[in-house]
Amino acid sequence: MRDALVAAAFRLFLERGFERTTVDDIVALAGVGRRSFFRYFPSKEDVVFPDHERCLADMTAFLAAAPSESDPVRRVCDAARLVMLMYAENPAFSVQRYRLTRQVPGLRQYELSVVWRYEQALAGYLRVRFAGLPDGILRADVIAAAVVAAHNNALRSWLRSDGKGDAEAAVDHALGHVRESFGAGPEPAVARGPEDVVVIVSRRGAPLWRVVQELESALGRA
Amino acid sequence: MRDALVAAAFRLFLERGFERTTVDDIVALAGVGRRSFFRYFPSKEDVVFPDHERCLADMTAFLAAAPSESDPVRRVCDAARLVMLMYAENPAFSVQRYRLTRQVPGLRQYELSVVWRYEQALAGYLRVRFAGLPDGILRADVIAAAVVAAHNNALRSWLRSDGKGDAEAAVDHALGHVRESFGAGPEPAVARGPEDVVVIVSRRGAPLWRVVQELESALGRA
Repeated sequence: MRDALVAAAFRLFLERGFERTTVDDIVALAGVGRRSFFRYFPSKEDVVFPDHERCLADMTAFLAAAPSESDPVRRVCDAARLVMLMYAENPAFSVQRYRLTRQVPGLRQYELSVVWRYEQALAGYLRVRFAGLPDGILRADVIAAAVVAAHNNALRSWLRSDGKGDAEAAVDHALGHVRESFGAGPEPAVARGPEDVVVIVSRRGAPLWRVVQELESALGRA
Repeated sequence: MRDALVAAAFRLFLERGFERTTVDDIVALAGVGRRSFFRYFPSKEDVVFPDHERCLADMTAFLAAAPSESDPVRRVCDAARLVMLMYAENPAFSVQRYRLTRQVPGLRQYELSVVWRYEQALAGYLRVRFAGLPDGILRADVIAAAVVAAHNNALRSWLRSDGKGDAEAAVDHALGHVRESFGAGPEPAVARGPEDVVVIVSRRGAPLWRVVQELESALGRA
């Protein structure tokens, strides 16, 4: 019944627009009563994002299950991947919703508050892992924001490509950038000689980001 | 008249709560008509954040006026400082508003959308500055999010201390952390010869953050 409500809602949103569709219209098309609608969705906005609550719960459980020796930055990157996986499960629906959300200010607001909840989940986990470190809370908040921004950058690119590209590769690339900025580095490389040495020569006055770029490319991580 | 409306609104919000105060109540207390209210504020939410539009305009102008040789990460950090300065202009008002915003979900929503607009302003500037760089848009989005998160971390700490600490020192410290993660480092040192060369030797397998740490310390930016 939940899926039928979502399908009916989206059909109407696309036909007549989000604002001009009422909950009564949706339940009439789905052939159920108003109370059934509200059993699944607190509001008309919620039916547009039917899977975020489940995904938030999955993310929270995934973070809570992290072994204490796991790298915390890698763990939040992996947690963020769960969101992309949810979008990639159903590319056509995700792309439709993306277009709808661009058009309706109330939905963009809703989306901002969902994104904020994901960010809080990641930051909460990192705050615990960084407890006792200098600036632990600051680091946690900054890394969580960076992870969410990188994830959303990849997600938006994929949605704008009509869900045609490789969503997972895009999000891995974006999150790899965050991992490198904050010290978790790429996935451990295989068969790399421990004594292999890299020499970088740089002007002292060069901006650090440029030097890091040279460094990344020298280390084969660009 | 604008200030009188803000003062009347806050007196009522604190006395009877945000939800139970109407625009009619506010204009009655301020002794003006409804049309005057809506000339200054599109909605009741806007009167809670009377200075964000001006601050967004100041930030946009500040970024647009950046010399092309300025360090882009430092520039967005300085732009974010404008927001903290606005809050620090009137600590008592800022603290009052912070408490009000914690209690009213509609105001938290409003705040999220304001924060999002600041982040978009910073990201927009960085996207232009990073145009043509590999992953320029990704870098821009991630750095803008990190700057906003660091700023807000400092701002919230200051608000929770009832506006008693040194707001500017707190935000400088938080933004310094972002600058170090993303390569702008602290303020430029003086008397640095342009031909001065730094050589870094590193194991290829070393985590990038460790190499960057060595680099920062060699460049005198740690």
